[in-house]
Amino acid sequence: MHAYRTHTCGALTTADVGTEVRVSGWVHRKRDHGGVLFVDLRDHYGITQVVAKADSDPLRALESLRLESVVTINGHVVARAPEAINPRMETGEIEIVADSVTILSTAAELPLPVAGEQDYPEDIRLRYRFLDLRRETLHANIVKRTKIISDMRRRMEGIGFTEYSTPILTASSPEGARDFLVPSRIHAGKFYALPQAPQQYKQLLMVAGFDRYFQIAPCFRDEDPRADRLPGEFYQLDLEMSFVTQEDVWNTMEPVIAQVFEQFADGKPVTPAGSFPRIPHAEALLKYGSDKPDLRNPILITDVTEHFVGSGFGIFASLVDSGSVIRAIPAPGAGAGSRKFFDEMNNWARAEGYSGLGYINIKDGVPGGPIAKNHGEEATAKLIAALGLGPNDGVFFAAGKEGQAAKLAGLARTRVGETLNLIDKDRFDLCWIVDFPFYEYDEDTKSVDFAHNPFSMPQGGLDALNNQDPLTINAYQYDMVCNGYEIASGSIRNQSPELMVKAFELVGLSQQDVEDRFGGLYRAFQYGAPPHGGMAAGVDRIVMLLCGAQNLREITLFPMNQRAEDLLMGAPSAAEFKQLRELHVRVVEPQAKG
Amino acid sequence: MHAYRTHTCGALTTADVGTEVRVSGWVHRKRDHGGVLFVDLRDHYGITQVVAKADSDPLRALESLRLESVVTINGHVVARAPEAINPRMETGEIEIVADSVTILSTAAELPLPVAGEQDYPEDIRLRYRFLDLRRETLHANIVKRTKIISDMRRRMEGIGFTEYSTPILTASSPEGARDFLVPSRIHAGKFYALPQAPQQYKQLLMVAGFDRYFQIAPCFRDEDPRADRLPGEFYQLDLEMSFVTQEDVWNTMEPVIAQVFEQFADGKPVTPAGSFPRIPHAEALLKYGSDKPDLRNPILITDVTEHFVGSGFGIFASLVDSGSVIRAIPAPGAGAGSRKFFDEMNNWARAEGYSGLGYINIKDGVPGGPIAKNHGEEATAKLIAALGLGPNDGVFFAAGKEGQAAKLAGLARTRVGETLNLIDKDRFDLCWIVDFPFYEYDEDTKSVDFAHNPFSMPQGGLDALNNQDPLTINAYQYDMVCNGYEIASGSIRNQSPELMVKAFELVGLSQQDVEDRFGGLYRAFQYGAPPHGGMAAGVDRIVMLLCGAQNLREITLFPMNQRAEDLLMGAPSAAEFKQLRELHVRVVEPQAKG
Repeated sequence: MHAYRTHTCGALTTADVGTEVRVSGWVHRKRDHGGVLFVDLRDHYGITQVVAKADSDPLRALESLRLESVVTINGHVVARAPEAINPRMETGEIEIVADSVTILSTAAELPLPVAGEQDYPEDIRLRYRFLDLRRETLHANIVKRTKIISDMRRRMEGIGFTEYSTPILTASSPEGARDFLVPSRIHAGKFYALPQAPQQYKQLLMVAGFDRYFQIAPCFRDEDPRADRLPGEFYQLDLEMSFVTQEDVWNTMEPVIAQVFEQFADGKPVTPAGSFPRIPHAEALLKYGSDKPDLRNPILITDVTEHFVGSGFGIFASLVDSGSVIRAIPAPGAGAGSRKFFDEMNNWARAEGYSGLGYINIKDGVPGGPIAKNHGEEATAKLIAALGLGPNDGVFFAAGKEGQAAKLAGLARTRVGETLNLIDKDRFDLCWIVDFPFYEYDEDTKSVDFAHNPFSMPQGGLDALNNQDPLTINAYQYDMVCNGYEIASGSIRNQSPELMVKAFELVGLSQQDVEDRFGGLYRAFQYGAPPHGGMAAGVDRIVMLLCGAQNLREITLFPMNQRAEDLLMGAPSAAEFKQLRELHVRVVEPQAKG
Repeated sequence: MHAYRTHTCGALTTADVGTEVRVSGWVHRKRDHGGVLFVDLRDHYGITQVVAKADSDPLRALESLRLESVVTINGHVVARAPEAINPRMETGEIEIVADSVTILSTAAELPLPVAGEQDYPEDIRLRYRFLDLRRETLHANIVKRTKIISDMRRRMEGIGFTEYSTPILTASSPEGARDFLVPSRIHAGKFYALPQAPQQYKQLLMVAGFDRYFQIAPCFRDEDPRADRLPGEFYQLDLEMSFVTQEDVWNTMEPVIAQVFEQFADGKPVTPAGSFPRIPHAEALLKYGSDKPDLRNPILITDVTEHFVGSGFGIFASLVDSGSVIRAIPAPGAGAGSRKFFDEMNNWARAEGYSGLGYINIKDGVPGGPIAKNHGEEATAKLIAALGLGPNDGVFFAAGKEGQAAKLAGLARTRVGETLNLIDKDRFDLCWIVDFPFYEYDEDTKSVDFAHNPFSMPQGGLDALNNQDPLTINAYQYDMVCNGYEIASGSIRNQSPELMVKAFELVGLSQQDVEDRFGGLYRAFQYGAPPHGGMAAGVDRIVMLLCGAQNLREITLFPMNQRAEDLLMGAPSAAEFKQLRELHVRVVEPQAKG
């Protein structure tokens, strides 16, 4: 017989009744029933009930043992009495009558309970992560995470992609975030950087004649922690293809992502592959007030600026005259309710720093509120008709410069949708946002800068760069969005050295700058570079959506806390003087803030 | 028609003759045959021959184009004339007659050729790695590497293992090598370390109740470059299992490794799973003079110390009396040859710093050489009989203190095997080396230290630690060896806090030291730790063996050079002052060596 187990704790069924078995695991729960001790023995695979009979050696061994101790049980399998059968457990029809017990490891008093799902303070959970990870939900989330990643790999390989690992000790990558640096011992005063993404390497792979690259890639950004970003490292499903248009990337990856979602959505509907809406960036900003629209929200924003041109309604008319736009956000059915909802929306917008949200509330076909009053009956009726509003709908108006009005309208759309409970939470709505602008105007520096990825191919190529207002040039750049979250981003790359230099020139960078910053890639493009493109999907975000988790720490094995500390392993920590001397660095204590 | 290709360059066959096609790729080779231009067009998938007819537009476009430029060819598929068929190419029965050509990217003058396999200086190859990677052998090696890793993953998942990613930004791990450090921005004066191996995390996973963990794990050691180790990062197939004995690990992993080898050995014989010899460490040192024996070498070393006790042969007898041992290394068939071989072996041993190799050369049944002469006919005959030597064999003798004699005997065994051409190069011989000593005597510090992994379980447990001479205690620790290379190493772990403290006490470390250095793991063991064990296999080494490559750079995508520099990306590089200030470090220029 095996030293520790003949079966796992998830394996025994009524087919095993009568057999001698050996199982090992953690003492999950204990219940004393009139001198008989019932122990739930747990391992990775499940829970099996063990019975220690009254006045037996096993009972004496187990009754005083702390929960979470590890034991080996020798015993025989018996069928449970019908009334004791637990249909929710795989092993719920049997139990093991213990003949002998070996204690493999005794547990000290637990700083946090394993059985049950009580909330516990974050720092205790992280310091004792090995206990936290034994808890049912987190354990299941981590297993689901591994399955999702494995499924991604399988699907990518199934459609002819190959996983290549790119270097982790490398040079600074131009993703725009802060790098983690690693001092070089051999080269005094020089540093490696951890990759923010394998962007340059995957492009170099295409130039090196490989094709259909993917990688479950660790990425590193030294950013201040945010609710939706763990400090330190995160994972991308990163991919790149040669000789493709953006449609090829979409048509290739839409099935992969849709099928991964379907596989792990627990039956919730997922936008089917082949039917992801492809929404131009400008249209997304107009209709959803966001380039990360939550399509589960049925509300569509409409531009009603034209309606107010030269209208009698003073404020909106004069705003429009001075270049502002007006966006209408319908609130279906809200007119039937109380005015309080409308006023609260207005107050919320003011609290967010906007000048407020005008509104019309229609009750039984009669428009109410100050805008309807000032705007006049006829014009209001025309507006309502144009917006297709029903007899008990409401509508909000966001006014301002285009970007600001769009943003407010988007926030209002989300808030109205949530408040009116219009969003079906049990659904995954996926879409592409396409035709991102290549450049943007930076209000801080009063200059043109890259809006997103400087390596993307501008639509219209060299001709557009030479002759078009930069701010009107779109890129072959796209995001994939799910339920209001960006889950992937990609582009067709600019693989022409000439175009690359010109594109950087328009943001005030010289050819020398390009060579200095992206020398490897720029050099590579001189020697025969294929057209190529790809994308990177956020693995952590996708796992979080599919686990229904609210926090990245609930789907991460050994996360750091919000202060970027690993409380379990004690990182970061002080280094020995000898180490630092070898690395040619010295610590500079920060000066007290004055 | 697709913008770039209807087919890849490896896809077209005679079934496509007559169809209009579009292909894209690199101009691999050009040949002018009486005004007709033949172009080998290459992509990741293969090579297709393109014909540009005399005086055609395609000819004018292609004839002046540099090799490695990227083009799209529109044309139609024709069957090659029988005499032009190339059976070594997938597409060797067809060619494309070009109707039009689009140049996608022109190549500058190449710093290294792609077609052909000429040797090129390392620094050029690394600086232009994107060209080097287009070359046939390296391209194929990299693809083979990805397939081997994918195959490992598939096999591990197939037997119930789950891949978990462990943190890369973490605390120092106790593998004994130098850490790469990463300064913390948020915590002035503190540093993360990149993992030398996920050892502690995988053990924590077992304590957290997971089971059958594996990971294709990036590992980082800041060691001085060696021929068989690239600077920076390397990959392990890392795994761990709960509730197992060492036999379980062997029985689980032997099939995986054997099958991976079989899959990629190109038909070369591989030791079948289930028949890997399990050689105790002490026996390996005796019979092979190494704990990494090359079993393809048929020579076995024999201890003949007893034979010389009180013998007439002066030197050996007195050596034995003073505690030395004598090891015999047969040289099958060497006696028939020239004495020169024996003298050269002796000279080689002296050049290596040993006192020399005695020998007997038997020619037609007559033993020759000084040892035979001094030792006497009868004793020599007895020795030859005991060693089972034939009438034309030779034998060498390595004498010295046990460790030294074993080492010399091992080196001589390899040299004899290679010189006499006894080693079948086209074979993969796998074995386990087991029962490694737990402690060793450190001659430098004159104290007992861990021989290998301090986290291993000592055989005999607490009893052995309390009552046995530490230097006689073995560990449940094992290596897997292939053709003289260690390709994996593992152990059953010491999961008892009490044993852990005692084990460290014997090397002079206190419980406080254990808590300070391995706090996470030590703490975890207090709360119910299962027996567990595993191993880690060197992915790079296995790939190198299976590719028949002589250098790790031949199987690595973007390796650093021996000075730990990435010549392509320019890493490491100077950091900006602002970055360093944020990281609270300052560069200290090394002092000139005096």
